[in-house]
Amino acid sequence: MNNCVFCKIINGEILSYKIYEDQYTYAFLDISKDIDGHTLVIPKKHYENILDCDNTYSKYLMETVSLISKHYVKNCKYDGINLLNASGKAAQQSINHFHIHIIPRLKDDKENVWPKLSGSKNKIEYMYEKLKIGENNEKVWKIDRDGTNIK
Amino acid sequence: MNNCVFCKIINGEILSYKIYEDQYTYAFLDISKDIDGHTLVIPKKHYENILDCDNTYSKYLMETVSLISKHYVKNCKYDGINLLNASGKAAQQSINHFHIHIIPRLKDDKENVWPKLSGSKNKIEYMYEKLKIGENNEKVWKIDRDGTNIK
Repeated sequence: MNNCVFCKIINGEILSYKIYEDQYTYAFLDISKDIDGHTLVIPKKHYENILDCDNTYSKYLMETVSLISKHYVKNCKYDGINLLNASGKAAQQSINHFHIHIIPRLKDDKENVWPKLSGSKNKIEYMYEKLKIGENNEKVWKIDRDGTNIK
Repeated sequence: MNNCVFCKIINGEILSYKIYEDQYTYAFLDISKDIDGHTLVIPKKHYENILDCDNTYSKYLMETVSLISKHYVKNCKYDGINLLNASGKAAQQSINHFHIHIIPRLKDDKENVWPKLSGSKNKIEYMYEKLKIGENNEKVWKIDRDGTNIK
């Protein structure tokens, strides 16, 4: 995408603190200065978010997220990691290029990454009927994993 | 795992509001009543979190997360989704079975899922040197994606 800041980072038009790169994904430090080591992992192909991203790229993204997460804990003395993603303006997405945040954590960092939510409005039985996938919610053993052929 | 509550949910020993199930993954509604539609996606094989999960299962998990996210927005009238994961006690993980939270969002829900973090302690150049993968941070074109053979 011509005016996508993350595409420009991938292309080298905008410099970044690159943590990792392979054929399909790119990872770099977020410059918001909100927490040390805040990392963004993005697909090299432009997708807006998880909602339009094809499974192949989502899986590549997850592999890279996993690789970096393990690296931060095994090799860089972090104690844990949080993952965050916002997909859609309603979900507070700011940059419209699919990205997963990695927040490295230390056991004494006193951060609170878990959001304070305002409580459910509907009964869980109602939500279950509204959201479940599959007729009678049987086990969906065979499925086209791109979601086009859910039985 | 014998005493893992999520393993018991997968095995049917504990009932759940199952949204989706396939060979490798299981998704069900969180019962915390913090927001409508709060969904957990877990691997059927017991892994503690992303840090000990093998790539195959991490990718299966991502496929299911993607499938359900698309379902919620395309078919269930949600406007966006957030993903959250905590891996490790230091990252505020509560249940020690790898799980990704899906938080479905509505454009007028007035929730704030983004955490308030307390600011970076180190310069980004220092963090870059500490965290980057690869000698001289060259493009890592060929890699064993399980992270065992990073050059």
